[in-house]
Amino acid sequence: MASKRTSKKPAPLVAIMTGSPSDLPVVEGATKILDMLGIPSELKVLSAHRTPERVTAYIEKAEQGGVEVFIACAGMAAHLAGAVAAQTLKPVIGVPLASGAIGGFDALLATVQMPPGIPVATVGVDGSKNAAYLAARILAASRPEITKRIEKDLQQQRKRYDKV
Amino acid sequence: MASKRTSKKPAPLVAIMTGSPSDLPVVEGATKILDMLGIPSELKVLSAHRTPERVTAYIEKAEQGGVEVFIACAGMAAHLAGAVAAQTLKPVIGVPLASGAIGGFDALLATVQMPPGIPVATVGVDGSKNAAYLAARILAASRPEITKRIEKDLQQQRKRYDKV
Amino acid sequence: MASKRTSKKPAPLVAIMTGSPSDLPVVEGATKILDMLGIPSELKVLSAHRTPERVTAYIEKAEQGGVEVFIACAGMAAHLAGAVAAQTLKPVIGVPLASGAIGGFDALLATVQMPPGIPVATVGVDGSKNAAYLAARILAASRPEITKRIEKDLQQQRKRYDKV
Amino acid sequence: MASKRTSKKPAPLVAIMTGSPSDLPVVEGATKILDMLGIPSELKVLSAHRTPERVTAYIEKAEQGGVEVFIACAGMAAHLAGAVAAQTLKPVIGVPLASGAIGGFDALLATVQMPPGIPVATVGVDGSKNAAYLAARILAASRPEITKRIEKDLQQQRKRYDKV
Amino acid sequence: MASKRTSKKPAPLVAIMTGSPSDLPVVEGATKILDMLGIPSELKVLSAHRTPERVTAYIEKAEQGGVEVFIACAGMAAHLAGAVAAQTLKPVIGVPLASGAIGGFDALLATVQMPPGIPVATVGVDGSKNAAYLAARILAASRPEITKRIEKDLQQQRKRYDKV
Amino acid sequence: MASKRTSKKPAPLVAIMTGSPSDLPVVEGATKILDMLGIPSELKVLSAHRTPERVTAYIEKAEQGGVEVFIACAGMAAHLAGAVAAQTLKPVIGVPLASGAIGGFDALLATVQMPPGIPVATVGVDGSKNAAYLAARILAASRPEITKRIEKDLQQQRKRYDKV
Amino acid sequence: MASKRTSKKPAPLVAIMTGSPSDLPVVEGATKILDMLGIPSELKVLSAHRTPERVTAYIEKAEQGGVEVFIACAGMAAHLAGAVAAQTLKPVIGVPLASGAIGGFDALLATVQMPPGIPVATVGVDGSKNAAYLAARILAASRPEITKRIEKDLQQQRKRYDKV
Amino acid sequence: MASKRTSKKPAPLVAIMTGSPSDLPVVEGATKILDMLGIPSELKVLSAHRTPERVTAYIEKAEQGGVEVFIACAGMAAHLAGAVAAQTLKPVIGVPLASGAIGGFDALLATVQMPPGIPVATVGVDGSKNAAYLAARILAASRPEITKRIEKDLQQQRKRYDKV
Repeated sequence: MASKRTSKKPAPLVAIMTGSPSDLPVVEGATKILDMLGIPSELKVLSAHRTPERVTAYIEKAEQGGVEVFIACAGMAAHLAGAVAAQTLKPVIGVPLASGAIGGFDALLATVQMPPGIPVATVGVDGSKNAAYLAARILAASRPEITKRIEKDLQQQRKRYDKV
Repeated sequence: MASKRTSKKPAPLVAIMTGSPSDLPVVEGATKILDMLGIPSELKVLSAHRTPERVTAYIEKAEQGGVEVFIACAGMAAHLAGAVAAQTLKPVIGVPLASGAIGGFDALLATVQMPPGIPVATVGVDGSKNAAYLAARILAASRPEITKRIEKDLQQQRKRYDKV
Repeated sequence: MASKRTSKKPAPLVAIMTGSPSDLPVVEGATKILDMLGIPSELKVLSAHRTPERVTAYIEKAEQGGVEVFIACAGMAAHLAGAVAAQTLKPVIGVPLASGAIGGFDALLATVQMPPGIPVATVGVDGSKNAAYLAARILAASRPEITKRIEKDLQQQRKRYDKV
Repeated sequence: MASKRTSKKPAPLVAIMTGSPSDLPVVEGATKILDMLGIPSELKVLSAHRTPERVTAYIEKAEQGGVEVFIACAGMAAHLAGAVAAQTLKPVIGVPLASGAIGGFDALLATVQMPPGIPVATVGVDGSKNAAYLAARILAASRPEITKRIEKDLQQQRKRYDKV
Repeated sequence: MASKRTSKKPAPLVAIMTGSPSDLPVVEGATKILDMLGIPSELKVLSAHRTPERVTAYIEKAEQGGVEVFIACAGMAAHLAGAVAAQTLKPVIGVPLASGAIGGFDALLATVQMPPGIPVATVGVDGSKNAAYLAARILAASRPEITKRIEKDLQQQRKRYDKV
Repeated sequence: MASKRTSKKPAPLVAIMTGSPSDLPVVEGATKILDMLGIPSELKVLSAHRTPERVTAYIEKAEQGGVEVFIACAGMAAHLAGAVAAQTLKPVIGVPLASGAIGGFDALLATVQMPPGIPVATVGVDGSKNAAYLAARILAASRPEITKRIEKDLQQQRKRYDKV
Repeated sequence: MASKRTSKKPAPLVAIMTGSPSDLPVVEGATKILDMLGIPSELKVLSAHRTPERVTAYIEKAEQGGVEVFIACAGMAAHLAGAVAAQTLKPVIGVPLASGAIGGFDALLATVQMPPGIPVATVGVDGSKNAAYLAARILAASRPEITKRIEKDLQQQRKRYDKV
Repeated sequence: MASKRTSKKPAPLVAIMTGSPSDLPVVEGATKILDMLGIPSELKVLSAHRTPERVTAYIEKAEQGGVEVFIACAGMAAHLAGAVAAQTLKPVIGVPLASGAIGGFDALLATVQMPPGIPVATVGVDGSKNAAYLAARILAASRPEITKRIEKDLQQQRKRYDKV
């Protein structure tokens, strides 16, 4: 039983939310980077427009469970990140997605142009990986081991440049 | 007392909401047109991001009070109209406002590019007057006197063209 | 004969117009949603530029036949919705289509930026489904059964989020 | 009386139409250039949306009166030029105007992106002068004196470059 | 011999120029429409940047040969139409082409935003067909048979709408 | 002397950098909010292009002095935030400034569209206040008193909505 | 007389051309920087569209007179730089100007998006100063004294950052 | 040994740098043109953000090795060219690449909108060939044989127009 407990998945530090099931292939880039950096996370599909109460309920539950950073991904009139930022005081990272005919431009502006007091830390269009790297930098403040892992990963990335 | 009663303001059919007190000069264009068309309305300053619970509470109260159409005005990452449309099944009209450096383009995309199921009837940038005209067309379905007033106003507008 | 009469297709409440036969695959999204919500509609291919008289004639006939909401879909210099709104006092919903090299941006601006007095309730680029949902909200004012069907559909949509 | 007759204003070859009285300061640039080139014109304020029947009636009357080129100026969801082009087979020149928050971009796309068969000869944003120069080039086909006047004006323009 | 002479191709009334051989598939839309309307034309591949002297020489030769309207097609920093308009006083129609990463937006602005005195009659992005229709309207001023052919073609187009 | 010591300014937790002295009026919005939230900060004018070595030197010194969050403000081809993010592993917040003819659009894209591994937490154009609020949320992870001050400020902001 | 000769202005190394007299206030930024760096230049107002032959004649004369770099400034459908680049093999620097309603965006695209073989070295919108700095870098290849002056100027610029 | 020496590759005059290995297919267009013009070059994959020190080290080494022109290619928030221009006084040519959802627009603005004193000679999106042609024009100042080769190549290009 004890062994079972130790093998239990650690409580997530990062909550990743995305507005539509169809966004998952892009959004999972965040999960992959967080896994690689040893940061526990969980991924929920929740819509600011279709399931607003679930968004509210999830934020509260996530905070109580120890989540310190939220990542919210959405396309088009991308309101999810702003809606999350209005309901928590934790840092919220917004990932504009390039779905629809306008190609991500709509989502970028709908995510980044927030009013004073409700900031969304916006990364590039479809930039789920950078959302994860940003979450890692935020969490690293009190977790020096994360800084080390980011450094190691950066070394890895630089090595790609050695071969060329 | 009876006289008092007759002088009582009628219950609003249109609820106008705007994201910031600084938007009022533009937004009051809607009130002016609705007054001219004899449609009772009320105007509230409420923010999707700063006062989300009040938005929720107000929508419920407004519907109970007889509001049939919502007009939501907001600039930049304009989420207000979408947030209202997610919480009522009444028609919601969105007015993107041209505040900030991007000049209304951000608000237009953040208002109009809604996901299927949560429509926002979007009018032009700073188009508060057209939001009122659209609300009037919607309300006129069961109120033929409104159709007459719209027609009369349109005649008036056409007369401007006679003089030139 | 009586049986024949009862099997007769009900008169359309929504008239859907589109500028070109090639738009039909996108535009039929509106028909599908209206069917699902039990709202009778009819779909016409009519061009503001190539068949302006037919547009005029059809609007008159449609209104006489009981149509209460118009949906007009068009790409590029999308004038259809504006032309319809200039010839009826019923609510007109505009669907900008993403045809041509500019990718729907042209149609969005040509549909939404209407002058005061002639409003077009614009939905997102290729947003024919949301045009139907918006028409449903408008028609529901005096038809509570439509509100119930919208609610049921929304539940259905929310269930998609349960599985993820 | 004879003298009166000879002083009669010649029938216009160019009909200039503009969507709103407030556009006149820009639009009058066209009149000025046409006057300078000795081309009779007339200027009408007519709206594709507010006075569609008058547009139709005016086009017919203008053609009968000898008009050979139409210039249509409009801002925002600028439909006027397209509406004229749909109702005449004469060449129609469109002038997108920079009114409203989007700065002329909307009017440019709404004017130029016409479907095959209904062309609008579009000039630059607020380019009423170039609309007149283009009308002059078109009319010059059967009027060599106009070509001479254009040439003379171009010389004049070039002289401005001598002084610098 | 006489028979040979009568079968001789008539002198072109419209000169179509395009900036690059790779544009031909789009540009040939103009030839096709002009052929259908019975208007003789010729198509040359000439670059404002790579072969400026040939452009100059061709314009002169074309005018002497009876060309009355020029159509110039170009993508990206599309200067061809403007360069032609600077060297002739005949009407010049510009067709912006959607080549390259910016998708025709660059070509549209580089074609339409001409300075006063050097107008380019701009049609939509990749709008070679409309360039032909516009040329036809211009040429029809002194050729009533062209007006008849345009009318017949428009009827044809309208018939497409009967079937739907 | 001891009294002097206690009055000593506390070491900055946030380093604000801006690309040009002319940006100071906008950038000081960040200082003002951080002061109000009781978060020590310092503001440096440093250019990624004109003083790259000083940027490098300052980052190192700032980190050693206890800075935990960087805010970098820049207009046009805004590289400052990205350059800082490439030289520290602390969270970097980018503020695109609306200087120059393109109106902030250039700075927004040059700040937000970073490659994977080097994230910049971008806020809206001229959004220096939100940069400060975001820094506060990040720092609050291990400083509950900051969370309280953000909450109090939000209450204050909400009160503005009571009066309307 | 000899003294007169020594006081003679040196032959220009840089030829600055601008499309319109109204551009001079912006364009003179280039002259000022070149003067400061001790590089002789001359400034001509010449239009690609209104005075194409003069452009051709001037380029030939300028090259014969020793000009090694051309700077061409133009707004809107900015063709001047491209036209110059098509007629010389010297490096041509293009400065897009922010005149007209589209705000420089048109000029930027019309200047930079040149076809392969006819390059224009484009600087930012209204970037006449940077055009001069770029010309200086090009000329410095065989003139080490210019490199020294650029270095000194850069020191000067950096000093502005010391004071803040 | 002597033979070995004569077969030695000549020292590069142009250094081509690109931000990511995935850009190579586009970037190699520059190498190809430089080879064709007989200009020795070398191509390095180096990132302004991931390997800033290597960029600095490489620039110094390249200048010492005789490089006279730098070409820097990058997509998205394209900082590479600006970073190079900040560290050398040689001319720097920037090639914006069309990677990511925004389609090269971001890279164009991030490359061209440089502050005064740090110019980047920007060519069109994905314009690596033109970067090479521009480098050739710059190098030709003191190498008349390069001018001859550019002329020959231009003849070749013009011949493509003969066949059509």
